[in-house]
Amino acid sequence: MTLNGSRGILGAMALIVQKFGGTSVGTIERIQHVARWALDCQAKGDDIVLVVSAMSGETNRLVELATKINPIPYSREYDMLIASGEQVAVGLVSLAINTEAEKRGLLKPGEAPKAHPFLGYQIGILTDSVFSKARIQAIDTTRLRQQISRKVIPVIAGFQGVDPENNITTLGRGGSDTSAVAIAAALQADDCEIYTDVDGVYTTDPRLCSSARKINRISYEEMMELASLGAKVLQIRSVELAAKYRLPLHVRSSFNSMEGTRVVSLENKVGSKMEQVLVAGVAADPGQVKFTLQNLPEGAGVAAKIFSSLSASAIVVDVIVQDMSSTGRLTISFTVGKSDFLNAKRVLEKLKATDPEFDGMKIIEEENLAKVSIVGVGMQHHPGVASQMFTLLADARIMIKLITTSEIKVSCLIDGEMIRQAVECLHHGFQLDELN
Amino acid sequence: MTLNGSRGILGAMALIVQKFGGTSVGTIERIQHVARWALDCQAKGDDIVLVVSAMSGETNRLVELATKINPIPYSREYDMLIASGEQVAVGLVSLAINTEAEKRGLLKPGEAPKAHPFLGYQIGILTDSVFSKARIQAIDTTRLRQQISRKVIPVIAGFQGVDPENNITTLGRGGSDTSAVAIAAALQADDCEIYTDVDGVYTTDPRLCSSARKINRISYEEMMELASLGAKVLQIRSVELAAKYRLPLHVRSSFNSMEGTRVVSLENKVGSKMEQVLVAGVAADPGQVKFTLQNLPEGAGVAAKIFSSLSASAIVVDVIVQDMSSTGRLTISFTVGKSDFLNAKRVLEKLKATDPEFDGMKIIEEENLAKVSIVGVGMQHHPGVASQMFTLLADARIMIKLITTSEIKVSCLIDGEMIRQAVECLHHGFQLDELN
Repeated sequence: MTLNGSRGILGAMALIVQKFGGTSVGTIERIQHVARWALDCQAKGDDIVLVVSAMSGETNRLVELATKINPIPYSREYDMLIASGEQVAVGLVSLAINTEAEKRGLLKPGEAPKAHPFLGYQIGILTDSVFSKARIQAIDTTRLRQQISRKVIPVIAGFQGVDPENNITTLGRGGSDTSAVAIAAALQADDCEIYTDVDGVYTTDPRLCSSARKINRISYEEMMELASLGAKVLQIRSVELAAKYRLPLHVRSSFNSMEGTRVVSLENKVGSKMEQVLVAGVAADPGQVKFTLQNLPEGAGVAAKIFSSLSASAIVVDVIVQDMSSTGRLTISFTVGKSDFLNAKRVLEKLKATDPEFDGMKIIEEENLAKVSIVGVGMQHHPGVASQMFTLLADARIMIKLITTSEIKVSCLIDGEMIRQAVECLHHGFQLDELN
Repeated sequence: MTLNGSRGILGAMALIVQKFGGTSVGTIERIQHVARWALDCQAKGDDIVLVVSAMSGETNRLVELATKINPIPYSREYDMLIASGEQVAVGLVSLAINTEAEKRGLLKPGEAPKAHPFLGYQIGILTDSVFSKARIQAIDTTRLRQQISRKVIPVIAGFQGVDPENNITTLGRGGSDTSAVAIAAALQADDCEIYTDVDGVYTTDPRLCSSARKINRISYEEMMELASLGAKVLQIRSVELAAKYRLPLHVRSSFNSMEGTRVVSLENKVGSKMEQVLVAGVAADPGQVKFTLQNLPEGAGVAAKIFSSLSASAIVVDVIVQDMSSTGRLTISFTVGKSDFLNAKRVLEKLKATDPEFDGMKIIEEENLAKVSIVGVGMQHHPGVASQMFTLLADARIMIKLITTSEIKVSCLIDGEMIRQAVECLHHGFQLDELN
């Protein structure tokens, strides 16, 4: 047997990156399950690399500690603090694998271990310095390849990296998915498996719509739209990255061994009958806040100043609408996710306090909004899809507050209390519950 | 004002390293207290460097998680796991200082922070690779000096470092004291303050003897003996290191602003009347286990093999007694601390299983022993002190199982159940409760 044999071809060994989310390592029992699973997969001949999240609940516990001290914690401290959650998980998973290996007789006392824990900085996961939303810039695979060639399973902390000044950075909620994909891409892995507490990607959120159905194959593009629209199963940047490297993703449950959802490139999706529908899924995101800024001076630089201040604080602005009132003053509206709300408010208030141009600005917030969206690669060639969506919502007496579209999605901002009815009527209206 | 002005001279600014133990950062309120304290000290004109332990209870929580997976966890994983406790504390303390500084108007939004969190690897705390009992080999002070010169308070994770392969190592329980002293020595600090939940070093454990009394000044040598004999207030290696660099230590409470115990060099102790006693303190260590190895072959290499195996596992052996039985077989007895018990047992059993020479060895364990000791630099010139100790114990009907002595201490191994009576009779017998 050679370690340099061709990978991924039927019968030959493959290199598989497996990412386990918080609920998949949420208890000692789940951690021991992950250990057995990884060793079982290795026993079939594949090389395994693990990426793990913090035990479920841990990140929230840490955030709570920080916000008791400061409701808007300084980001350098915040990232160092919450990165400790993954450190704990990595230590425990690696420990569990070595313990299980010893139990199976694969690891004798005194021998080199079968698993090796790694934090972000230990394998040079280099990021930029945007704390809490850092982006990976490089990964040094030397130590990983060394371990893999010795049949050791590297157990890597997801969600974290280091910036050029050696500060710990984190990649944003769900960032472990991006860690896994980036590592898989850097290692040129054959497959990247995302283990979670659901069976795969659904046509919509099953908690909002009982007839939601698992999708077997979905394109990167559709998955990206679904992820960006609030389908929590994958962080959007991880899908972007996977698409860029044409890395196949497999979203599946760590609670059973069923096939999950394969996220693949468009050409690989073709031929699968069930996917030739116009709409692949309905996404719903309840956590939307709308800011309306009134009484702004007219001028080319105004919008630029606002949105560059927001983006400097790494706040993701979604929908933007600009309007001129009859008095010649400008009004700008935009939405942000709930998690960016306080931060965005602070930025706007600082702008008002420090820049004379914004002296008379009035800031109005509208919380409790939801965004519902339909996504599907088919719709780009079928112009009637958007109007069908508006009709379905109107028939259900749901008011549309704002509309945005892309080539493969249409989104509507609605009252947060109507989210369930909206999802239900769209899911049914586009026949998503009829497919098997 | 110049930052390079002479330090430590009356009226000039001093560089002070302050170490806060687990109970001193055990709650958000305690952490906020530490933040206020550090900023108050800085406001008096001194440069402050903080070293912090994990929040009390946190290390035990992490150890419990690990031992659920494996009663004797692999050390690389174990160290990575428990080092996360200090990471959390450092993040929170630094956050609290910056938040308090903002409240005091010392830190305006957008300005450089007043505190900077540092993990072991981030300031190059290089150790050897003996996991869980690593020793510091070097500290790179470049980043620390940079921060200090900018009047930023570095907040450093105690207890942890990195080995040459970038693995996280820990320094053993109480290792944060050693971190603090090593950092103070590297920075040539004027003072190293050890903040804890007691008022200072006591003549004996107040929980064992109600007339225990705080010591105002104690020599490094006495403190070392007390620490090595179970006085938990300072890790012994920290005192060794402080003595080596003639660094003054100040053990004090974080719950009040009272003067604590100054640990100083012998020449600085002289002149203080109350310290001219023969015995400075009584130490008690309940967690002792005695191993007796019977039926060993005679031979020069036998003891060497046993103790080098133990030391290779970083087990600290205390008292050793060797005896020859009438049948010509060798018997060796030795004691270890309770925390090393399981590990020592494993080493001995491995030796018996793998080395034919130890085939017939019988391993007998005696748990539940205690060691009581008297310590004092005065006793080296007063030969009657040891016999006075034996008389006091005999009068109290306490059997002595084993005796060891050094120049400034005498230790007796006794039945663990007699520990309270032993401490009481020695403390009273040497008039330690009479001093003010």
